[in-house]
Amino acid sequence: MSESDVAFRSLVDKFRFERVLNSNPQTKTISLLGLIDNAPAILTAEKTHFTFDENKVESPSASNESDSRTLHRCENEYTCINALQELRQLTSNDIYYWGLAVLKQNMDHNPTTRLNLIWPATTVHIRKFEQQQLHLVRETPETYERIVKPYIDEMYQLGRLKWVHNILYHGAEADRVVYRDFLDDNKRDGFVILPDMKWDGVNLDALYLVAIFYRDDLKSIRDLRPEDRNWLKSLNTKIKTIVPGCYNYTIRADELRIFVHYQPSYYHFHIHIVNVKHPGLNDGIAAGKAILLDDLIENLKYLGPRGYMNRTLTYVIGDNHDLWERGLREVVSKQLEEDGIPKTPKVVNDFAEDGD
Amino acid sequence: MSESDVAFRSLVDKFRFERVLNSNPQTKTISLLGLIDNAPAILTAEKTHFTFDENKVESPSASNESDSRTLHRCENEYTCINALQELRQLTSNDIYYWGLAVLKQNMDHNPTTRLNLIWPATTVHIRKFEQQQLHLVRETPETYERIVKPYIDEMYQLGRLKWVHNILYHGAEADRVVYRDFLDDNKRDGFVILPDMKWDGVNLDALYLVAIFYRDDLKSIRDLRPEDRNWLKSLNTKIKTIVPGCYNYTIRADELRIFVHYQPSYYHFHIHIVNVKHPGLNDGIAAGKAILLDDLIENLKYLGPRGYMNRTLTYVIGDNHDLWERGLREVVSKQLEEDGIPKTPKVVNDFAEDGD
Repeated sequence: MSESDVAFRSLVDKFRFERVLNSNPQTKTISLLGLIDNAPAILTAEKTHFTFDENKVESPSASNESDSRTLHRCENEYTCINALQELRQLTSNDIYYWGLAVLKQNMDHNPTTRLNLIWPATTVHIRKFEQQQLHLVRETPETYERIVKPYIDEMYQLGRLKWVHNILYHGAEADRVVYRDFLDDNKRDGFVILPDMKWDGVNLDALYLVAIFYRDDLKSIRDLRPEDRNWLKSLNTKIKTIVPGCYNYTIRADELRIFVHYQPSYYHFHIHIVNVKHPGLNDGIAAGKAILLDDLIENLKYLGPRGYMNRTLTYVIGDNHDLWERGLREVVSKQLEEDGIPKTPKVVNDFAEDGD
Repeated sequence: MSESDVAFRSLVDKFRFERVLNSNPQTKTISLLGLIDNAPAILTAEKTHFTFDENKVESPSASNESDSRTLHRCENEYTCINALQELRQLTSNDIYYWGLAVLKQNMDHNPTTRLNLIWPATTVHIRKFEQQQLHLVRETPETYERIVKPYIDEMYQLGRLKWVHNILYHGAEADRVVYRDFLDDNKRDGFVILPDMKWDGVNLDALYLVAIFYRDDLKSIRDLRPEDRNWLKSLNTKIKTIVPGCYNYTIRADELRIFVHYQPSYYHFHIHIVNVKHPGLNDGIAAGKAILLDDLIENLKYLGPRGYMNRTLTYVIGDNHDLWERGLREVVSKQLEEDGIPKTPKVVNDFAEDGD
């Protein structure tokens, strides 16, 4: 062990666990809050990916012809199946088998985990890593009018959309704008396309753009009416025409996932444009938050003259969201009661008392 | 080792590696194609998430008041930091440290990997696992009748649903069933809930269950009619009542994301039940594939007597999917043309010719 390894080991050994800040089973990542020498520390661990060597070329032993060299991908004892040290079958059905395995591991060739330690951590670090509880809520038109609309109006009055106006009218982030379509006499059809902050601007597999509209009569999809159908259809076509062109046709029109969020993170109508391949956007493209533009267009055919104001919208909301404390918490518990779903019993964990 | 472990081990030992079908560094999953006894086999391995016990409560040593009992999450030598066996520091900067670790592992308490083996695998299986181009397609009722329905009928005749019948009627995977509700005289309301194979069965953050129904008149959501609304509503309530109970109320009714897939991976109606916290699942919960059960229920209010047969469904499909070559490819290019979206120009790569 090197000197820095020893220092690192002794830091981690002093870590006194307090609570789990976040746990992500998809990426196999966990963030723990603890104390090191009485100062807050955040330890994040992420499992490593499987190792497999793709590039090792070997001449066949039986022949000298260099043409017949073959690629070997499973090279050493730590790669692929070679690494399977212990196996257990969980179950099988027909041609399908499921099991568990313990893999050979080794600090040099196959470490198990990547670690990141922040110490001393500030409260800003802690909040950034912390996970909130999520809830599924059904927002009826009545709930919208009573709880959501007053919140939107308040956000608007607080000037929370100033940055949007800066982009639309005052040249803010002008160097980032990918496309701008605006005529003074046709504000209704104007829009700006720019890269979302979640995109690195380089890797097209992770392409993430946002279209923001000059129309300011739409706070969210709740304000969409059947007469907006053709407007949305033409937007859909424009986006699918413009975006591939902006990126030299390395991405095609049918490779764009075009959607809105409800609840959106700001109440000025905007559309998300993402490569369908994009592998990880947490819940940003999940059903329960993302709604395809094509589905908006389709639904407006059926929803009647009041359009989306007429519909019950079901979505996931975190209890850090203002709307949760402003009424959605009660809405959820009332709905569960009306649906006849029994209340969660008070969990009493008494194994320490039983002690027999 | 049990008998099935030995059989499983000997199957895996016979696996002769051919190529990597897919490798996902985000989810730490790899799929390998190989041969076992000269028949194609697909071995998929996914790293496990970190284990941490959430439910162990201990009375404080300094006090006897049961109110002040505390939750202990890091209990045994395999959880959280206790599991760090070997450490190495990679680099550090200010308050930030990065490193690697090898973890204690153990088949019972901390296996490294989940395995799935399909053998013998068909070309359909292979294509499903292989990395593919994705496309957004609008499936009109006409497209469904002409392309999708004949495909579903063919899959059915080929006996691709045998494993479903094994579960429903022949006790397959009986030890895995979480809940079964079936009365001979009320097949319509019967269903089975069991863990999805993507779940390790342990980590509740990643809870993933599937409800499979005894009703066999529903191949997919296309067969849902307004008269199924109450059936779906009662299912929604049943799932939200049963599932929290099955897991000691460590998950609540409003923390379940309940949805269907279109296209589904098999054409016997089933519902996915996932912890809302589960962040990714690749595109398994994405708009463009996942549709919330609540949205199905809501949409059936508007779609008219033919229900989902009446609707245009927009979804993402890979070009490995049989339906792509069976007609969806033409559907997409015709739709782009009709929408007036210009064709992607032929990209000519001429830097090799210029050569100056």
